[in-house]
Parts: sequence; C-alpha cells; structure tokens
Amino acid sequence: MSGEMLGSLYNQNGYSTARMRNIWSDKNRIKVICQVEVAVAYAMAKNGKIPEKAYQEIQAKLVPENIDPTQLKIESARAGHFLAGFVTVAQPLFDDDSGQYVHYGAASEDVEDTAFVLQLKESDRVLKAYLNQLGKILYQLCEKYQRTPTAAIAHKTYAAPTTLGFKLGIILNELDYLMRRLDSLGSFTFAGSLAGADGTSSMLGADYQQVEADFCAHLGLSKPEMYWHTQRERFTEYCHVETMIAQALGRLGKNLLYMSQTIVGEFQEAYAPGRQGSTVVPTVCNPYMVEAIVNLATVIKNEMGLMYDTMTVDGEKDTTVWRDLYVALPEMTMYLSGQLNYAINILKFGQFNPQRMRQNLSADDGTIYSGSLMMALAKFMGRENAHGLLVKLRDKADHQQVTLRDLFYADATIAKYLSKAELDRVMTPNDHLDNAISKTEQILKLYKARHFNVNNGKED
Amino acid sequence: MSGEMLGSLYNQNGYSTARMRNIWSDKNRIKVICQVEVAVAYAMAKNGKIPEKAYQEIQAKLVPENIDPTQLKIESARAGHFLAGFVTVAQPLFDDDSGQYVHYGAASEDVEDTAFVLQLKESDRVLKAYLNQLGKILYQLCEKYQRTPTAAIAHKTYAAPTTLGFKLGIILNELDYLMRRLDSLGSFTFAGSLAGADGTSSMLGADYQQVEADFCAHLGLSKPEMYWHTQRERFTEYCHVETMIAQALGRLGKNLLYMSQTIVGEFQEAYAPGRQGSTVVPTVCNPYMVEAIVNLATVIKNEMGLMYDTMTVDGEKDTTVWRDLYVALPEMTMYLSGQLNYAINILKFGQFNPQRMRQNLSADDGTIYSGSLMMALAKFMGRENAHGLLVKLRDKADHQQVTLRDLFYADATIAKYLSKAELDRVMTPNDHLDNAISKTEQILKLYKARHFNVNNGKED
Amino acid sequence: MSGEMLGSLYNQNGYSTARMRNIWSDKNRIKVICQVEVAVAYAMAKNGKIPEKAYQEIQAKLVPENIDPTQLKIESARAGHFLAGFVTVAQPLFDDDSGQYVHYGAASEDVEDTAFVLQLKESDRVLKAYLNQLGKILYQLCEKYQRTPTAAIAHKTYAAPTTLGFKLGIILNELDYLMRRLDSLGSFTFAGSLAGADGTSSMLGADYQQVEADFCAHLGLSKPEMYWHTQRERFTEYCHVETMIAQALGRLGKNLLYMSQTIVGEFQEAYAPGRQGSTVVPTVCNPYMVEAIVNLATVIKNEMGLMYDTMTVDGEKDTTVWRDLYVALPEMTMYLSGQLNYAINILKFGQFNPQRMRQNLSADDGTIYSGSLMMALAKFMGRENAHGLLVKLRDKADHQQVTLRDLFYADATIAKYLSKAELDRVMTPNDHLDNAISKTEQILKLYKARHFNVNNGKED
Amino acid sequence: MSGEMLGSLYNQNGYSTARMRNIWSDKNRIKVICQVEVAVAYAMAKNGKIPEKAYQEIQAKLVPENIDPTQLKIESARAGHFLAGFVTVAQPLFDDDSGQYVHYGAASEDVEDTAFVLQLKESDRVLKAYLNQLGKILYQLCEKYQRTPTAAIAHKTYAAPTTLGFKLGIILNELDYLMRRLDSLGSFTFAGSLAGADGTSSMLGADYQQVEADFCAHLGLSKPEMYWHTQRERFTEYCHVETMIAQALGRLGKNLLYMSQTIVGEFQEAYAPGRQGSTVVPTVCNPYMVEAIVNLATVIKNEMGLMYDTMTVDGEKDTTVWRDLYVALPEMTMYLSGQLNYAINILKFGQFNPQRMRQNLSADDGTIYSGSLMMALAKFMGRENAHGLLVKLRDKADHQQVTLRDLFYADATIAKYLSKAELDRVMTPNDHLDNAISKTEQILKLYKARHFNVNNGKED
Repeated sequence: MSGEMLGSLYNQNGYSTARMRNIWSDKNRIKVICQVEVAVAYAMAKNGKIPEKAYQEIQAKLVPENIDPTQLKIESARAGHFLAGFVTVAQPLFDDDSGQYVHYGAASEDVEDTAFVLQLKESDRVLKAYLNQLGKILYQLCEKYQRTPTAAIAHKTYAAPTTLGFKLGIILNELDYLMRRLDSLGSFTFAGSLAGADGTSSMLGADYQQVEADFCAHLGLSKPEMYWHTQRERFTEYCHVETMIAQALGRLGKNLLYMSQTIVGEFQEAYAPGRQGSTVVPTVCNPYMVEAIVNLATVIKNEMGLMYDTMTVDGEKDTTVWRDLYVALPEMTMYLSGQLNYAINILKFGQFNPQRMRQNLSADDGTIYSGSLMMALAKFMGRENAHGLLVKLRDKADHQQVTLRDLFYADATIAKYLSKAELDRVMTPNDHLDNAISKTEQILKLYKARHFNVNNGKED
Repeated sequence: MSGEMLGSLYNQNGYSTARMRNIWSDKNRIKVICQVEVAVAYAMAKNGKIPEKAYQEIQAKLVPENIDPTQLKIESARAGHFLAGFVTVAQPLFDDDSGQYVHYGAASEDVEDTAFVLQLKESDRVLKAYLNQLGKILYQLCEKYQRTPTAAIAHKTYAAPTTLGFKLGIILNELDYLMRRLDSLGSFTFAGSLAGADGTSSMLGADYQQVEADFCAHLGLSKPEMYWHTQRERFTEYCHVETMIAQALGRLGKNLLYMSQTIVGEFQEAYAPGRQGSTVVPTVCNPYMVEAIVNLATVIKNEMGLMYDTMTVDGEKDTTVWRDLYVALPEMTMYLSGQLNYAINILKFGQFNPQRMRQNLSADDGTIYSGSLMMALAKFMGRENAHGLLVKLRDKADHQQVTLRDLFYADATIAKYLSKAELDRVMTPNDHLDNAISKTEQILKLYKARHFNVNNGKED
Repeated sequence: MSGEMLGSLYNQNGYSTARMRNIWSDKNRIKVICQVEVAVAYAMAKNGKIPEKAYQEIQAKLVPENIDPTQLKIESARAGHFLAGFVTVAQPLFDDDSGQYVHYGAASEDVEDTAFVLQLKESDRVLKAYLNQLGKILYQLCEKYQRTPTAAIAHKTYAAPTTLGFKLGIILNELDYLMRRLDSLGSFTFAGSLAGADGTSSMLGADYQQVEADFCAHLGLSKPEMYWHTQRERFTEYCHVETMIAQALGRLGKNLLYMSQTIVGEFQEAYAPGRQGSTVVPTVCNPYMVEAIVNLATVIKNEMGLMYDTMTVDGEKDTTVWRDLYVALPEMTMYLSGQLNYAINILKFGQFNPQRMRQNLSADDGTIYSGSLMMALAKFMGRENAHGLLVKLRDKADHQQVTLRDLFYADATIAKYLSKAELDRVMTPNDHLDNAISKTEQILKLYKARHFNVNNGKED
Repeated sequence: MSGEMLGSLYNQNGYSTARMRNIWSDKNRIKVICQVEVAVAYAMAKNGKIPEKAYQEIQAKLVPENIDPTQLKIESARAGHFLAGFVTVAQPLFDDDSGQYVHYGAASEDVEDTAFVLQLKESDRVLKAYLNQLGKILYQLCEKYQRTPTAAIAHKTYAAPTTLGFKLGIILNELDYLMRRLDSLGSFTFAGSLAGADGTSSMLGADYQQVEADFCAHLGLSKPEMYWHTQRERFTEYCHVETMIAQALGRLGKNLLYMSQTIVGEFQEAYAPGRQGSTVVPTVCNPYMVEAIVNLATVIKNEMGLMYDTMTVDGEKDTTVWRDLYVALPEMTMYLSGQLNYAINILKFGQFNPQRMRQNLSADDGTIYSGSLMMALAKFMGRENAHGLLVKLRDKADHQQVTLRDLFYADATIAKYLSKAELDRVMTPNDHLDNAISKTEQILKLYKARHFNVNNGKED
C-alpha cells in the first residue's frame, strides 16, 4: 500500500470510506469501462453501423471477469495509452471478428469521460445517503436542544444568548440548501459523451444525435445538449457543490472544536472502549474526529483549484489540464465520504453538555446582555446615547476592577429607566431566546418538508 | 495611486474597467451603506419600532453628499470600526434626536453584507451587458466562419479537420450555459440581511419576519429564507460562476494564443494606429490582450480559494474568514470586467485568417485524415486491423523518410478497399465538415432562442 | 479610491502600512523606472556604446519630476505598452538627440524586472525594520513571562503545564530563523537584468558582461550569474520567505485568539480611548487585530500560488504568467507590512493575564498532570502499565461523576508508589517548568547573539 | 487498488516511480517507525533513563518483520491512534518487561515527525539521483545544440534568433541553482525531534539536550536547535524547493510542447515499438509525456498551499493543520519522482529537429531581425527614430500585402545607412548567435564545476 493517505492501510479510513473507495477502485473502473464500450456497441448496432451480432458478442464477452488486471497493466503500459491497451486485451476474447467492433465509433475521451460520469453517479448515491443520515441526526439534535441556552460567539467573544438548537439549525439549514443543490445537478452532470476526438461525432455519421441518445439511454445517463469534452462544467459544478458541503462541515467542525476545548467543555466526541486519546497524556480524550473534519474541508477546497484548471482546455483535447481531473475528481469525492462519515459519527455518538453551557454563560461579565440592555435603554434615551453610556461603564469596570454586571445594577441612569426586575429580565438568557426558537422551528419545518418525504425509500 | 494592479493609474485598465471600478469605489460604498441604513429605518418605522419622523429625517439627511470622506476616515480609524465611525459621523446631521435611530436594529454585519449585495447586484448588470455583447460577437463569428475548415487540435497536434465556426461555437455554447447560470443566481444571491449579531433578529422583536421583508423590499432585494451571515453560499455561488466564466474566457484565450503564434498566423489581435508591440522587436504585433485573458483566468481562479474559506465561519461572526470576502469579492468582480472587456475587443477587432488555416491544414503529413481513413477501411477489414495497418505505415514513414500521405496512396491494402477517388475524398477536409456545421447550427439556434429575445431592452 | 482593500481609503490601513504602500505607488514606480533607464545609459556610455553626453543629458532630464503622470497614462494607453509610452513621453525632454539614447540597449522586461527589484529592495528594509521591532517586543515578553505557568494545548485540550515565555519563545525562535532567511536572500534577489528580449544581451555586444556589471553596480544591485527573465526564483524565493513569515504571524494570531476568548480571558488586545468593539454589543472588546493577522496569513499564502505560476515561462517572455507577478509581488509585500504592523501593535499594547492563566490551569480535572503522573509511576510499574491504569481511572471518572484528580489521590496503586507529598508535587505546575525555562533561556541567548548586535544602527 | 492516481495500478507510473512509492509505502513506514522507537530506547538507555537491557531487547525485537500489518491495522483502528496501536502490537514481542520501555520518553508527534524526516531523507537521495541524471542529459544536449539556430519566442511570437543550446542551457542553469538549493536544506531539514507533547522535553529530564543529541545521532540525523513540532519550516522549505523544481520542469515542458506542435515539428518525444498515440487518430504520436510534466507542475504546486497551512499551528499540537502534511508531503515527493522520470525519458529518447528549426526561422516575415535592424540603424539615425521607421514599414506591409522583408530591402532610409551586404548580415541568424553561444559556454562551465566532481560516487 502506498503512502498517499487514501492508499495507506492505516490511514485511508481516516480520509474516506471503504464504500466510496470501492467505487473509485481499479476494479470498478474496469467495470464501468466495459459498460461504456458495450453501450457504444449497442448504440452503433441499433443504428445499423455495426452488425447486431457484434454487439451481442461484445455484450457477452466484454465483462470485467474476462479482463485480467495484470495483462491490462502490461498492455496499457506498452501502448502508453490505457484505452489502447484495453482494446488490445479485449481482442482475444472473441472467436470471430466481433473484437474489431470494440471501441468502434468512440474516442478514448468519450469512454473515459463517460466512465467517470458513471462512477460519479454511483458516488452521488452514497453521498446523498450520508447527507440524509447526517441531516436526520442534526434534525433530531436541533429538536432536542431547541431551547438550550448558550452563547452566540462573535470574534471568539460572547455576543448574545442564543440556543444550541439554533446554532445547529443554521448548519442544518445550510445542508438543506446544499442537498438540494446536489439534487439539481443530476441530470446535467450525469450525461454521456460520444463525440470523437474533434467533437464533431464524425465517426457516427449524420445521424449522430440518435446514436448518442441511444448510447446515453443504455447507460441510464442523460443526453448532453452539446459535445462537452472541452466544456468541463459538468464536473466542475459537481465538485463545487462537494467543496461547499466540505466547507459547511468544516464550519460544523470549527464550532464543535470551540465547544471541545478543555476550558469550554460543552462537547465531547465519543470514546468507545479501547480508544485512546494520547500516548503521553493518558487521560485526555482529544477531539481528533472534529479536527479531521476541519482539516478535510481544507484538503477538499485545495483540490478545487485543479478542477477549475480542467476548464481551460487548449484545442479539442489537452492532457495538461485533463489530468487534473484524474487527480482531483476521485480524491475530492473520496475525501468527502470520509468527512461525512466523521461528521455522522461525531454527532451520533458525541455528547453535548447543556449544563456546562449554562455555567459558561454565567461566566460572562455582563457583556453578553449589553446589546439587549442598550436596546432596552434606547427607547428612553436613544440608541447612540445608550451605546455611549455602556461603553463608559465598560471603561469604568476595566479601571476600577468592578464587574460590569455590578455597574449595570449600580448605575443611576439605567436605574432611572429600568426597575431592578426589568434589569433582571434583561440580564438572564431566557428572555432572549424566543426568536432563536422560532427560527429553529422554521428550519425544521423546511427541512422536513423538503427531505423527509422526498427521500423515503431512496436511502441506503 | 497604489501599486496593486487595480489601483495603479497605468495598469488598472489592463485588469478591470472603469465602469466596474466605480461600483466598488469608496464613493459608491458610502452610497450603498447610506441606502441600507435608510432601509433599516424604513422597515423599523413601518413596523412601529422607531418614530416615522425619525425615518423621514434619516431618509432626507443620510445621503452620500452629507458624508465627508475625510471625516469618516478619521472617525472610523479612531473607532477601529467602520460602521461605528459611520454612525458617529452621521450624528451631527440631525437637529433632533433622529440620529439616535440611525443603525437602530441592525448589526454592522447586516449593513456590510447587504451593502455588498447591492454592489454585486449593480456589478451583475454590467457583467451581463458585457456577456451579451461578447455572446453577440461570438454568434456572428460562428455564423461567418461556419464552413471555414481548420484543424481540430488534440495534445497540440492535428486530430481531424473541423471548422472555425464550430470551435468558436463550442465556446459560445459554454457561455450560453454560464449566462443562464448567472441568471439563475439572482434571486438567491441578491437578498438582504437583518438578523443581528447572533442571527436571531432579537433586536427586531417577534415580528422580525415582517421587518426583514420590508427592509429587503425597500432595497429591491429578495428576503432570505434564513439568517445567512454564517451561510456564505450567496457569495460563494456567485463567485464560482464568475470563476467558471473566467476559465471559459481563459480557454478562449488559449485557443486564440495558439492561432496567434508566428508560425501559425491564424489570428491577429488588432493594432490600432499608435499601438506598439515591443520596444526591442519593432515590427512585432504581440497578442498581449489574448495573453491577458489567459492570465486573468488564473488570477480570478486563485481568489476563489478565499471565497471557499469565507464559508468556515467559527461561531456567529468570524473576521478571520470574513475578511477574505472583503478582498476577493470586489477583486474577482473587477478582474472579470477587465477580462470580458478584453475578450470583447479581441474578437470585435481582431482578424482570423481562413486562408492561413487552409495552408496550415495542408502542412499536415496525412495524419489529420488517418482517423477517417481508419473508419473507411474498418468497414472492410475491421477497426482494429485498420488501426494496426495505419500504425505500421506511420512507422514506415518515419524510417523511410517518405511522407505518410504518399504511403497511403501507395499501400496495396488501402488500394484494395478504396479507389483513388474515394481516398481523395477521405484526404481532403470538406467531406468531414457536415457534422461540425450542423452542430454549429444547433448552437446558434439555442443561443438565439435563449438570449436574443430575452435580453431585448435589458442590455446597456 | 477603488474597492480593492489596498486601495480603499477606509480599509487600506487594515491591510498594509502607508510606508509600504508608498514604495509600491505609481509615483515611486516612475522614480525607479527613471533610475533604471539612467543606469542603462550610464552602462552603455561607460562602455562606449552611446555618447557620454547622452548619458549626462539622460541623467539630468530623466527624473520623476519631469514625467507628467497624465501624459504618461495617455501615451502608454495609446501604445498599449507602458515602456513604449514612457519612452515617448521622455522624448520632448531633450533638446538634442540624447532622447534617442533613452532605453538604448534594454528590453522592457529588463527595465520592469530591475525596477521591481529596486522596489523590493526598498521594501526589504522596511520589512526588516518591522521584524526587528517585533522581535524586540517578543524578546521582552519572553523575558517577562519566562516563569509564568500556563497550559500547553494539544488538539485544543490541555496537554501539560508550560510557561507563557516558552510559548512566545518558540515563535520568537521561528522569527529568528525567518529573519536570517530573509537576510540570506539579499544578494541573490537584488540583482539587475540587462539581457534583452532573447536573453542573449545581443544589443550589448560581446562585452555584455561588463555592461551588465556596470548597470547593476550603478543601481547598487548585484550582477546575476545568468539571464534570469525566464528564471523567476529571485522573486519566488523572496515571496516564499514572506509567506512563511506570514504563516508564523498567523500562528501567533491563532494562539492569541485562543487566549482572547471570553471564556479564556488570558489576553486582551488594547482598546485606546474612542475605540469601539461593536455597534450591537456595546461593552465587548473584540480581538479584531488578532483576527486580522490570522486572516492575512491566508490572504498572503493564497497569492503564493501565483508566484509559483510565474516560473512556468513559455519561451523567452510570456505575459500569461508574468502578469501574475505584477499582481502578487506588490500585494504580498504590502499585505505583509499590514500584518507585521498589527502584530507589533498587538504585542506592544495588549495585555496578558497571568492570574487568569493560573486559574484556567486549575480548572483542569487533573488530566494536565496525567503525563507526569504516568512517568512518575512508570519507574515502578512500567510505562505501558501506568498508561493503562490512568486510562482506567479516566473511564471511572466519566462513569462515576468523580473528578479524576480525586481518583488519583484515592487510587491504591498510585498510593503504593507515590506518597501524598510526591503526588502533590506531580499535581502542581511549578515542578514541570524547568525545561521550559531553560529552553526559553536558550532562545533568548540565540536571538540576542544573532540580532541585537547585528542590527545596531540598521534599524529605522 | 484505489482510485487516486498514486494508488491506481494503471496510473501510478504516470504520476510517480515505484522506487519513490516504496519509500512512502506502509511497509517502509513501519520500518522507519521501528527505527525511531529503537533510537528513543537507545538514547534513554545511554543516558540512564531506562535499563540498557530494555534497549537491547527493543533493538532486537522491534523490527518490521515482527509487526503484523493486519494486527497493527486492527489495533490502531481500535485505539483510534496509530502510535497507540503500534505500542500495543509491540507488547507481546517481549518476554520480560522491556515492552514497557517502548515509546518511553517520546510523544507520538516526535515519532511521526522523525519518521517522516527519515522517509524524506531517503527520498532526497532518489530525487538527487534523478536530478543528476537529468542534469547530465541536459548538459549533453546543450553541448550538442550549442550552435543550432532557432527562434527566441516572446508572447508566442518570434523575438530574435537564438540557439537551441542556450534555450536548454537556461533551464540547465535553473536546475543547477535548484540542485544547490536542495543540497543546502539537508542538515536543516533532516533533524530529529524528541520534545514531548508540550515541547519542553519534560519526560527526558534536565539533560534533555544530551538525550535528544544521542537520539538524532543514532538515526544519522542532525540535532535541531529547538523544539520544532510547531515550527514547520523544515518541511515547508523542502517542499518549496520541490515545488520550484516542478515549475522548472513545467517550464521545460511548456517549451517542448511548443516545439511538439504539428505545425512546428521541432521536437518529437520517443515512440518505442508498440506505443500508440491515439485510438482514433492512428498515425499521430502525441506528446503525452511532455504534457504530463506540464500537468505535474500544476498538481505539485497545488499541494504547496497545504504545506503553508501546516505552519499555522494552534497551540502545541493541532491536527487540523498537521494532517495537511500527511497528505501533501508524501504526494508532492512522489509526484516529483514521476515528473523527473518523465523529463529524463523525454530528453533522453526524444528527437530535436534542427532542420525544421531552420525552416521555421525562415518562415518569419523579417520581424525576427527587426530588433537587430533597429540597433544597426540606431547608430546612424537614433534608436527612437529607427524604431519609428520600422513600425511604419510594418504598417505598410500589412496594408499593401508586401512582405516586411521586401520592404526592408526596398526602403531608401535603410539603404542610406546599410549596404545590401550589411543588411543581408542583419537578416540572417548566424550573426546573432555569438552571445547565446558564449552564455551557454558559461552555463556548462558552471554546471560542470558544481555538479560533475561533487557528485562523483554519490549517484545511484
């Protein structure tokens, strides 16, 4: 096993799932290449361009079990061309001249691109299953913690009281959007290609539209509007959505990492029996999985640059940029599987600590309520004046070693406008949570309507 | 003027257009900030949260002409906070307490984000005007050169005969797609934000939905489904489409650069009187503008990494990533204006040279027709056998210093299946162009249907 | 003023310093261009290739004050070529034919590259002054806090007790290295270029070595070993070191951001009178400057991709990649000035809170000492056994709601090997700080030896 | 085999060499991990911190052959921690309590980082062997083609006559620099680490310096000045040089790709018997390997962003960025092996075509000599006037369909200053090559002095 993380026995599960790796494996690649070549023969035969019998033979013989990987490696290395090697290896499978009709009418880019589409379509099902699973868990957590008070954090400092449910809800709502974006790409991205080296489909003759349509239909793919080997939006768009999903998970990770700090203690990822946090700090339970989803957001984002690069094709075929796709498309998709898998496990088995959140809220010096206090005072003395008053109290607190909270209660101007009971209400979390709760409600409702019915029966 | 290319007097027009720079200027920024603060007051007054009179005053006084840039620079520097400085500068404009209601109910991120949306919406009109102009020019060139034979280039070598119209058509068709993608983002991207520092809209009270709706409507923006200061898809999606457009133009550039080579001579960008190609090669007319659009594809793509970074918000506000947007969003949009402007000028005034294309076609040794020859022979001897035969002739040509073309005509096997007249037809471009022409037809038809009617009256 | 952050009146100081922007300004660009053209004339005259009188005239007349910016903008726009416009604008300055000798022997890339080198050399002095200032402040802080206990943080959780001085010292030691790296680049990077469009210096004749040597000497630059317009290492290496400095500062920022959290409270950046933290959270003092240095690490790193891109020059000159340098070199250098300026101000005026560090240390459940405890026990029972015992206690603590610390004191095995007094010593910070203190000592000593004497008198 | 290019049976040799993959393989990783743990035991025993006998046992038993990969995978997965799993797997190897002393005194980051250094040091030898091989081939080509005229290309157009030897020489000289840069990194990069989780080496006691020194010496590594788990320059610097090498090769690739175009025909990469250029253009010999080295420059450059990211460590250990190194360091190094291997094969077996270069030179309209012509005229009429004259002739040529060359010969002003014989000399390549030849001479001399003696006996 090789040293790239996706290939290393000890590391690959920390960067991807086996289920996804199988889709992008050499073994599956041979399978989809066979399927595409069979579909070429099907479409050519259906339109009278090769004998029906040749198609029958090709369909029967050109199956993964008949392709010897070692032989294929040798032949494709000798040819210096994967498809040329494949066609060579296929020849001895046929007793008659049917082998002559293998790859008849297709360019290697047609076969390779369409094969990538087939693999991506398989991946798409897996990603959607993961996303549905993650969405469901997040949904339940939002419900569970809909009324749990915690601090909204701006610039790493406390901004205002909010709820854990709303914090998670905003991420759920983002996933909601991204899942619909993924759905929207299907018919565009999952298209076949049969256009030849020059894109004119000249090898198919004048009825190329019909041949390409039959080819695509046979593979369960959509027929593209136009030759697209030089128009790489199909893949770029897909990877863009993958990248956005990865960043949304990275955001989830950053937020959980905040909560996982020793000094915060609001979240703890699960440590099953036998799991170890460190060889030198024996009792620690480090948030490795949370860190991993932050990291994978970066790793995936980084490959997106290659995907944009694939678009600047020079002429009708240009390996200087096409090879970027060979690197980035499988890797991004595999990495995303690993990141999703981690996110699911983190949220499914990890523990939030509402009690600690309440304690941490009260550790604040009063600042977290200063916005509400300003608005409460604003009605009487104006917003700008109220802002100025509170800034002055902040200054006083800093220089006189009094807590801000105490100053609020002691201040004459505040007392003029707000009774102690009114100030008490401003200075406790619960009175500020109504909107957070109602927004979470809305998020849940929208998610349910869009994803719960729709995905019935679709999930793995 | 500063040394960044967008700010340098001598360079900025090589990277952007004045029209676009104006939208992102400090001056226009003040204008949109004023508009947003007025809209806040409007929505708050309409919902009974501030006095109607305060809104009237704010609307009347909070206008760009009343904001002194120097004063604003001083105050915002002193506050270390742009919006805080802005609110301070606004106070003296009011005789009564209306100034107290400026920024009443909004967080600075609401104002800044919404202001960016307004600027981006203005930019969007400009970009669309440029794209329409470019599309129209490309459309005409496709029509003009629909039947002009030239070489399809794969891996920098000749692959097959095609037409110049089809080459340009594939790019037109890509633009067609990208223009529709830009259209599709409008209502999603052009949304306002009024949600406060914690996203709960707590400053607006329980009827926050209505307040936000009024705020957005007043600005001609859509109301977002949910608080989005931590969901950056609105901007990321837009910049992604900008990046794809930039890459499509980069591809156009790479293809024109190929044609612009001395040794190829198929395209020459325009040299108006007085323009100079070089100080040391006096008679050269270098394709600087073509190089520039290739370069700007890279520069724009490079900033996209920052846009993805903006998505991984830690907590409810996080300047470590928000600042990425401040850098990338204006720059990407300005760079794209420069790239589009160059592309328009290159195609509008540059010269294609069909005669040279024909000459260059004939410089080929016969390889460009070897694919068609293989298919012509395949009917008789099988594809794989035909391929093998031609590979052998290639080898022979290399070792015997005979041209491949001559070997084709001399070969007994070929002669067995194809008459000289048939071989002649294979070995000339015109018989291969039908599909290229019909595909171009289809591209033109689609473009016309989608963009010619629709954009009537919309263009600048 | 334009909307890119470096050009915006309200934002540019948050991304760069005026001192650095002046170096990269259009005004200074004209100055260095004049200097380079004068140096060309000097070297050509000295070697008898142009009349001495022409050089004298050029030296006297080709000065920034004689170049009208508007005229230059017009002429360079008309020529579509900055240098061509410059040469045109220079002509009327001369009464005799000396103007004919302006730019005599140089290609525009010689002039532009050398001018960039001159600007970078000026920038280098400024960066070094900033670095020295920062180093000195960090040095003093390391001394001051050499014995201040705080927590080493691994994976956001407590790993072991350490000192604040050592934490800052590691960063000082990193700066120490990077400052020496910057020093090492000088003679390589600050070289002139006089090689013509083809790199052969054919315009200089057979004695090109001498002409180039004189040219470089006149500008105070080193003579390059070889023609380097296509070897971009000079700039790439420099920007690489800039990028590493930016990342080191980004690391400083991340560490300070951790300490700046409300719940941590170990660091507070300074709020001078009038500075405001937020418009909606009136009493907050957000760590904006700390966030800014984290952000600028990303922004600078992002441009490095363009610098690598400049290296893949196609042929002898290639604007598709050269333009990357025009964008990235000035911007990276300006951004770094802003980041350094922030870092200096953050450390100079901000407050560390040792008392809070002590409190936060004690908030730990005992985990922070578990490593030392393991090692103390290891002597008696073996490392692996000790590790296993502590993991079991961790588990017990989690399930029985006892604190880990209490379990340590109650455990029979631990008691068997360690007396209460011994355990007490393990469970307090001070006994673990010796190495941290001695390592800090070493860091300070090295820094002093390398930077305090050397830079005497060099600083601004 | 997995779908990432480095792992795929059919693709990995197109992206890396087996020799390099072996170094980064799981198998070799286990080997270096064992070596590092043995060195820990060695240094601890030598300094009296563990029994000498324990070291002897560990040295004897902790060898790769004793580690079962499957067992290790299971245990490290269960622990969720590679090193913890490794220590567990090691335990049963020992009959006595020596197993307790495995990993005694080291943190997992010490072991992992040092193991990466060992692997990188092995890689370094391989890369240097490749570089020497490439340098030698380039050296010979420079000698062979030192006087072969060809066109210098600026902006894809002809700039001036030069030599093929000089073109290749500039790249050789760049490699020369980069090879010396790689040499300069050795002692800095190849350092061990034994500093613990907090960097204080507290587990080693007060004599930590000696322990670390012994540890490093045992592994043949240098002792670092300071704890460096949070100072990532060692790896970043190395990968930066790798990236620069990759870009230099990318530049070589771009230049060869220019020459490989059908219409240019100046270079042809080798097609050994059986190699195929295309399945649909049977007689084409596409420059796939040349394209691959251009592509790998991009792929390698793209990973450098991750390496910079590794530097912004939060606290004393931070997997959110450390994991970037796990991805990028092995991959960049493996990709570079593939790129170097291609470069070697391209230059060793490919064919330059000097005859075609001469033909292509003469295809120019005279522009290629216009710079020399300007300088020849400048002596008589001034540079600026000569430039203006030639620009006018260019214009005339374009509008009157006369060749520029003919206009040069027909022009009265030119004739006034230059005899036909003189003009003839200007208008032929050979008179312009002297400097190109002498510069190449210098490049060869420098390369020889620096690399031919030095590397004697060092190569593989």
